[in-house]
Order: sequence, then C-alpha cells, then structure tokens
Amino acid sequence: MSEHGHVIKFGILGCAGIARKVSRAITLSPNSALFAVASRSLDKARLFATANGFPPDARLYGSYEALLDDPEVDAVYVPLPTSLHVVWAVAAAEKGKHVLLEKPVALSAGEFDVIVATCERNGVQLMDGTMWMHHPRTAKMKDFLRDGDAFGRFMAIHSCFTFAADPDFLKNDIRVKPDLDSLGALGDVGWYCVRAILWVVDFELPKTVTALQGSVLNDSGVILSCGGSLLWGDGKVATFHCSFMSHLTMDITALGTNGTLHVHDFVIPYQEKEASYTTASGSGFDDLVSCWVPKPSEHLVTTDLPQEALMVKEFSSLVGGIKSRGLKPDTKWPLLSRKTQLILDLVKKSIDNGFMPVEVIG
Amino acid sequence: MSEHGHVIKFGILGCAGIARKVSRAITLSPNSALFAVASRSLDKARLFATANGFPPDARLYGSYEALLDDPEVDAVYVPLPTSLHVVWAVAAAEKGKHVLLEKPVALSAGEFDVIVATCERNGVQLMDGTMWMHHPRTAKMKDFLRDGDAFGRFMAIHSCFTFAADPDFLKNDIRVKPDLDSLGALGDVGWYCVRAILWVVDFELPKTVTALQGSVLNDSGVILSCGGSLLWGDGKVATFHCSFMSHLTMDITALGTNGTLHVHDFVIPYQEKEASYTTASGSGFDDLVSCWVPKPSEHLVTTDLPQEALMVKEFSSLVGGIKSRGLKPDTKWPLLSRKTQLILDLVKKSIDNGFMPVEVIG
Repeated sequence: MSEHGHVIKFGILGCAGIARKVSRAITLSPNSALFAVASRSLDKARLFATANGFPPDARLYGSYEALLDDPEVDAVYVPLPTSLHVVWAVAAAEKGKHVLLEKPVALSAGEFDVIVATCERNGVQLMDGTMWMHHPRTAKMKDFLRDGDAFGRFMAIHSCFTFAADPDFLKNDIRVKPDLDSLGALGDVGWYCVRAILWVVDFELPKTVTALQGSVLNDSGVILSCGGSLLWGDGKVATFHCSFMSHLTMDITALGTNGTLHVHDFVIPYQEKEASYTTASGSGFDDLVSCWVPKPSEHLVTTDLPQEALMVKEFSSLVGGIKSRGLKPDTKWPLLSRKTQLILDLVKKSIDNGFMPVEVIG
Repeated sequence: MSEHGHVIKFGILGCAGIARKVSRAITLSPNSALFAVASRSLDKARLFATANGFPPDARLYGSYEALLDDPEVDAVYVPLPTSLHVVWAVAAAEKGKHVLLEKPVALSAGEFDVIVATCERNGVQLMDGTMWMHHPRTAKMKDFLRDGDAFGRFMAIHSCFTFAADPDFLKNDIRVKPDLDSLGALGDVGWYCVRAILWVVDFELPKTVTALQGSVLNDSGVILSCGGSLLWGDGKVATFHCSFMSHLTMDITALGTNGTLHVHDFVIPYQEKEASYTTASGSGFDDLVSCWVPKPSEHLVTTDLPQEALMVKEFSSLVGGIKSRGLKPDTKWPLLSRKTQLILDLVKKSIDNGFMPVEVIG
C-alpha cells in the first residue's frame, strides 16, 4: 500500500514498440509498478526489461502463459497484434488479471464481447489504451462542448488522423497484415477518429454509418486509407478521414450552434507537459464583414504526468478499488471500447457493401 | 489614366449588403473608382451612394437598365440575388460592360454558360467575387502546396464553411428563397468550400461527387446544411461541410504525403491587414512517441490592401488591359467560376438522387 492505495503490479505481454511508452507510464504513475514482462523469447524479455526501467528483480518470462500463472501479477498490459487480443485477454481474465488492452480492442465487436463477458465473469477491470481520453485537456474541451451558451447544441464534427507510413511499414507492419490486424488504418488511426466523434456526442450511437468513396486497400484487402460519414436520428453529422498515406495530422473540429472547437494534436499532443485547443463562441463579423468579432481564443492546459501515465493511474485506481475495497469493475470503459469497435466494423461493412449506408444496431 | 493605367469606372447594380464592402474595395483599389449606382428606387441609390463613399457627382440611377445605358460606365459589380444574375450579367455584357459577378455565379452551370458566352461575344471581362483568391496569403499557401518536398503529393482535403444564421435570416433572407437562390447554403458558403477544394488540386475536376447523408433542406427545398465527398481518378479525396446552422467556421485542411496545411479563416481573415496559416512538414514523433518532431509552424502574411480591394484591382487591371492595350479578356477566371458552379450542381443532384455518386462530365 502506498499513499495512493494499492500499487498495482503490471505484467506486460509482449515487447511491442508501444509497450516502451506504456512501461514508462507505469513507472511514472504513482499507483502502479513494472513487475513482469513476457515474450516468446526470454532473451527478448530480458532486453526489454533492461531497456525500459524495470527493477532489477523484475520477473522475466519466456511465454505469455507463464506470466499469467504468476499469482503476484495484478494486471496485464496487452500490446499484442489485434488478432491475438481475444486469446490473451480472455486467458488473462480467466487467471484473474485485470486487462489494459491496446486498441483496436479486437477484430470485431462480436469478438470483443467475448473479452468483455470473460472480464465480467472474473470480476476484473477492462480498459482500452486510448491515452488522449485521460489528458486533462480532454476534460477541459468537454467542459466547453457541454456549455450550452458557449458551444450551444452540437451540430457537426470532422476528425482526421493520418500519418505517412514508410514503404517498409506498408509492406511488413503488423497493421497491414490481414491475419494480424485486418482493419488496417481504420483500426489503428481510424479508431481515434471514431472515438473522438463518439466522445463529442457523449457516446450516443449514430443511426447510420456510410464509408466514403475512395478508400484504399492493399492487395490483401487491408485498409490503408478510408473515410466515413455518420448520421444521427436528430440530424447531427460527422465525417472522418484516416490513412497511412498522408502526412501526420490529427484533428478534431466540432461545430455547435454557438461555438467551434479546434484541436490539431488530440491523439498525441505536440508537447508532453502542455497542450492547447482553440475555441470560438458567438463569432460574427464587423460592420463591413472584413474581420471576425470576436476572434477565436487559444487555451493552454498543463499536466505534470503525460496522458499515458494518467491512463495507467486511472486504470490502476479502478483495480485498486476492486482489490482493496471490493468495488465492482467499472463498466464505462469497456462500453466506450465496444461502441468504438462497433462503428469501425460498420465502416468496413459499408466499404464491403460498395459504400452504401449501414444501419447501426447497438 | 493614373500611374496604374486606366482607372476603371464602376457602376453597382443594386444595394445589397455585400455591395457596401465592395464599394469600399473599389475606393481602396488604385485603378478603380465608384462612378454610378442603380437601385429600383432612386432614393435607395442616393442613400447608398452617400453612405458608401461615392463622390458627390456620382451618377444615381433608379433602374439597372439606365445604369447600363450610361456609356461612361466601364464595369459593373452585380450583387443581385442569384436568380437575377443571368438576366443582368447578360444585359451588362451586351452593353459592353465588364462584369464582376457575385457568387454563386448562377443557378446552374448551364445558366452560367450563357453569361460566359455573352461576355466572350462582347469582349468583356468576367470574374466572380471570390475575394480570398486574391489575398497574398492564398498565393503563399499555394507555394507550400506546390512544394514537392515540403508538401509532397496531394492526398486529401477537408473544407468547412458554416455560420449560424438567425431565425429571421432562415425565414426571410434571399439565400433561403427557392426563387432567388435555390442552392441555399450550398451556393452561399458551400461555394467557398468547393472553390478551396478545386484550388488545392489546381482545378482538376473530380471523377465523382457524392452528397453526404444528413443534408437539411427547408420547406421549400432550399439547402440549409449539407456536405459532399469528391473522388479523383488517381485516388485523391475531398470532403466538405457547409451550413447556415452551425457557428462561424471556415477551414481548409490539406494533406500531402509530406506535409499538412491548416487555415481557419480562409474566406474572411480574422484581421484585415494580416492573416496566418499553419504548415507541418516531415513531422513524426520522438523516440517514445510522446511529442511531435518537428512541430507545425505558423506563417503570417501582411497586406496593405484588404483582399476585396486586391480582387477589384486584379479585375480592373484586366479591364484596363482590354481597354488600353487591346488585350483579350482573361479566360481563367470564368473557367474557375464554371468549375465551382458545376460541382455545386452535382452535389445538389446527388442530394436529389438519394446521395448516390454522380459522375462529373466537365
């Protein structure tokens, strides 16, 4: 027990690149600790532990099973290829381990439901690795979106996340392999666009999802670039664009009746300790329509801990509550994951259906 | 003759709100002068001239015909409701007047072709009133988009122009009346989105245009809000959103393989004398994917003359060349107008066709 309650002991399943960032986050978060790492190769696990700030007595495992059999591991972080999520998240939950699961959470919402049911049955916490949800800027932006005067009623959002993958990535990365990560750019970067859209509307599911003409698939049918258009029953609209083929861009533009929100680094802030966003409210023009009155304003939010450490802290706090106070696992986080995954599935379905609208059945 | 060559004598057809801004622009531009104004009421013309810096000897007309019959008027500015453009632009051209025509240029591309043909037959210059095309920032942004290293190959663009019209506008404004301006928000603000998209691709027409689910029409069928998705043969994509129902927003986000351009006030800059845009090139992340390297940079462009005066100056310069040096009218500007109008027509056609893709035949 620390001053923050239980310190949650993490085991990491696999040595993916993203696990380096999350290892540091586990170290930075006050209520969690690096405890074990497993790789299919013990040498790889040892190298990873040495390079990523694990304590000298960290437990090293040459198989994922062995790590899950360690009774002292409280929680696992799962950065494995998406196709392996269901197997290892289910195995972890069945061993009573709490599960911090990378996104996309599964190959489909149906597959994710198996993970959710297993976690529920075993009383363990499940949360996905969408870091930006935990940045204090995100809460500040939500305050603005909820402000009936400053923002008004939500009308429309556009979100975009792209990066320009190099030729090696486009040929060899896990995220372009149909057997490992079949949704490709949609699952990897589109995940964030769809999450941003759902976040803006307080996770109300749309009525229809329509993929946009012009998606690009590789020879194996994995998405390299695509877009979508979402429509709600009351007329709200959203569009997004995600791609492995354009320069790094990560935008949210949310339009209300009275205000506008812009953010250009919502997934990974330009800087670790401070992040900004821009709002405009009640803007019009001067008498001759020559300039804006008032102009938009920029807001800066600082954070001591980077967003990934805040994510680990929130997850560990929930796990701590379950372990020390007998609380039930929080059901909000798996629900957000599930809704995000569902929309991804339907965008893919619309692409497969020749860009026809697909009805959303929650 | 001034040091700038001919000073072009403008007549203004009608006293629309936007004509106040353009009157000032004609005064500011060194090669043009306010010479006459016509309204269906002579009193209204007099009031307008007094309030908008016309010289004391400005000619006031109680009918548009009378102004067009004045042999000393070189050029007319036509801010009339869109449905009247074809009648008065044709009448002006037939009287040998050069025509600066508000946007949307006509109710349809076919109707605009009549205007173009009449202007060509009469050897007069035709240009539309898209002011932002003439801001020096626009040329600077184009330099970036043309930079094969900094921006790379163009991949995708999103553009948005919305403003929140008040209830009176939504009920009574010209722009929501089917007999005056049948394209509504698509013609008024969507015009700029489509122009921005075409501008980015050097006015190469797309292969298909698809309206997005969720357009809003008033009881008379006039568009209050809509969006579109454009696709080129080589895979370039574009989306736009335009509306009278969301807070003031005017964005271009252009993605290349190597760079990104953002501008948030492209139609009317926040300030008259300076305007900025943001570019990013070759951005990636630091080792732990915790921050951007390099970060985007902002660029400031100053201008002595506001963009609307630069527009008038360009138009007057072309007219001056025709008058004093026997040059042919410039055909570039009418062609840009025509392409913009064509895409608007096809978005409307796609809405009418239940959001099915419409093939573009230039």
